[in-house]
Amino acid sequence: MQEIQVENRVWIQKNGKPFLGSGRISLLEEINKYGSISKAATHLKMSYKRAWELVESMNSVAETPLVIKETGGKNGGGSNLTEKGKLIINQFRKLEEKSRIYLADEIKKCCIS
Amino acid sequence: MQEIQVENRVWIQKNGKPFLGSGRISLLEEINKYGSISKAATHLKMSYKRAWELVESMNSVAETPLVIKETGGKNGGGSNLTEKGKLIINQFRKLEEKSRIYLADEIKKCCIS
Repeated sequence: MQEIQVENRVWIQKNGKPFLGSGRISLLEEINKYGSISKAATHLKMSYKRAWELVESMNSVAETPLVIKETGGKNGGGSNLTEKGKLIINQFRKLEEKSRIYLADEIKKCCIS
Repeated sequence: MQEIQVENRVWIQKNGKPFLGSGRISLLEEINKYGSISKAATHLKMSYKRAWELVESMNSVAETPLVIKETGGKNGGGSNLTEKGKLIINQFRKLEEKSRIYLADEIKKCCIS
């Protein structure tokens, strides 16, 4: 049996500037998990500088920040997601999933073989 | 006014092998236009070797060939698309377009901002 698989990548721009994509969302997910940009970067095999730049870019483009730096406290601070940041992960992953389902349905109909 | 744009890339695998993507379809479109893999490659700033490999890959994965080599004739041969090749360009571009429209609609609904 011949099996057709369709793949797709989604990314979002805002006012012509890069805003969200699968890689940026993965970074938000890791920051949410570890409470630290540095640990998230290590986990994604990304430099801290690069991770920091991506966070800055998302924060500056979003209506309200997605990541905030928490200073002080017993762990000496760290970074965490705002409610908006958590919401956007959810919205983006759902959009990807819906798009995947849509394309899988379409490819069955359109008979590419 | 804040403007959200969604972009996406679609590609298709068959039995786990790369089959079609926007770049491969552009190559088919150029071959259709120029009747020559070599001219299509030049136009796409791609080496002839690379273009030839992509055509071979698509031909071997498709049910029937998408590109055929025409030998002889007053122009000393060239390459042309089969009916199947022309059909697949159309199907793929439609799939991309539908997916674009779907995502543009979804992004309006899902309120990423």
